[in-house]
Amino acid sequence: MKVIATSSVLRTIRDEYLGVMGFVPTMGALHEGHISLLKRARSDCDHVTVSIFVNPTQFTKSGDLDIYPRDLDRDLEICGELGVDLVFAPDKTEVYTTNDETLIRLPYVGEILEGASRPGHFAGVAGVVLRLLNMVRPEKTYFGAKDAQQIRVIRRLVQDLHLATEVIECPTVRAPDGLALSSRNIFLDSNQRRQALTLSAGLFNASDAFAAGERSSGRLRALARSAIRDQDIIAVDYLSLADSTTLAEITGDVKNDALLSIAAMVGSTRLIDNVLLVV
Amino acid sequence: MKVIATSSVLRTIRDEYLGVMGFVPTMGALHEGHISLLKRARSDCDHVTVSIFVNPTQFTKSGDLDIYPRDLDRDLEICGELGVDLVFAPDKTEVYTTNDETLIRLPYVGEILEGASRPGHFAGVAGVVLRLLNMVRPEKTYFGAKDAQQIRVIRRLVQDLHLATEVIECPTVRAPDGLALSSRNIFLDSNQRRQALTLSAGLFNASDAFAAGERSSGRLRALARSAIRDQDIIAVDYLSLADSTTLAEITGDVKNDALLSIAAMVGSTRLIDNVLLVV
Repeated sequence: MKVIATSSVLRTIRDEYLGVMGFVPTMGALHEGHISLLKRARSDCDHVTVSIFVNPTQFTKSGDLDIYPRDLDRDLEICGELGVDLVFAPDKTEVYTTNDETLIRLPYVGEILEGASRPGHFAGVAGVVLRLLNMVRPEKTYFGAKDAQQIRVIRRLVQDLHLATEVIECPTVRAPDGLALSSRNIFLDSNQRRQALTLSAGLFNASDAFAAGERSSGRLRALARSAIRDQDIIAVDYLSLADSTTLAEITGDVKNDALLSIAAMVGSTRLIDNVLLVV
Repeated sequence: MKVIATSSVLRTIRDEYLGVMGFVPTMGALHEGHISLLKRARSDCDHVTVSIFVNPTQFTKSGDLDIYPRDLDRDLEICGELGVDLVFAPDKTEVYTTNDETLIRLPYVGEILEGASRPGHFAGVAGVVLRLLNMVRPEKTYFGAKDAQQIRVIRRLVQDLHLATEVIECPTVRAPDGLALSSRNIFLDSNQRRQALTLSAGLFNASDAFAAGERSSGRLRALARSAIRDQDIIAVDYLSLADSTTLAEITGDVKNDALLSIAAMVGSTRLIDNVLLVV
């Protein structure tokens, strides 16, 4: 496994890999969610590149960037064990070169839901993913379903800009109790973590009802919401039931595949989760 | 020579060209300026692709898009004679696919000078060039020096996004009387065309003085301006003497390579021109 810190070395080495290159962009602090992406890429592709880069431009809350968990040694160990070929772990100046000023904006899919709550977040995500895709030039790129809107932003970006990579979505990985894995979960104390379970529990309630035939968007939203008791330590930001492709909010009955998604502050930690309702 | 109208065919055919691909993006209505780019690409590269696409997103004045000159038959004849391999002449829906929403912004170099006078123009230029570069995947891309700010926007875009193409600048081609060639020159009547010569004449005055040792930015600007008599049919938009790399406006003496550029309305036609002052 080669660990690369500069874009110039990456550019040179990249050309030595002639088969299908799979790419898993990450911000490090790898957990079982990332590991599922690495395994899928390893099984799909001739070569696998992982990037580990805590991208400053996608953080919108002061201080959040500083406390984001980092553990490069452990991340490299995981990548090594899983047969990753290249790890690209650049510092900021390798991704954003001197006088960098190019901004990417997706004013619809990037500015509703998560994008409305975190202005600039998806501009940051799109900007870094585009730069990384241009450096790594993968045939296939892997993202987790937990970041449902992110994958829709990236699919839109890839289609709009005619990028030559296939975007592959991998299922959300959950703890045995249902909590979606996230690098931010380490910030939860035991009480907060117990409260956080009500987010996934609500989604599962609605998903079960949907499987049993419930199609009313109002009742499905109410079911998802009913599991959550707003308390001092949990505050729902949004609960959305939207068309899975367009993310247009559904009124009346659900007729096409729908994404039920939620964002909430649990203490000072922002968590998101979602389930896909497949008709 | 192959003429291609769709991005899917271009994608398939592109992979058949294994050597160095040169690319000349144009809006058609090819003149000697474009021809100089085609010849340079033909002499530099194994293969040459020309795009002919009047990009709607870079027009900022109502009606301007509709009257922009178009002559595809003649353009194809010129490309054929010059040994072009591929002509990509897509319609709008091939460049901007359904629900396209990705915007590219360069808030400094894209929003001063031309960008200040034509808000959104360079967002449109950057957006279309990025899409075309991703489709054509050229090793070398050719632009004319007449669009001085455009080439700086594209260099910035290519560097910021880590695109794998070399941006090559070719000298401005002028009519024997000094007027910089432009597809828009056909809109000038004979009186306007005579007036338009004062733009290049002013630039040459300043350039001659610079060659003779003049370094005062104030005097150089005044020399360029003095050739132009503002009249009903000519109105200067800006006259800029700026650092050639950063486009920061120069005060005091010129110490590094500088770009002297002008934009003016001649009747209802907007013309731009520039000279490089090399220390």
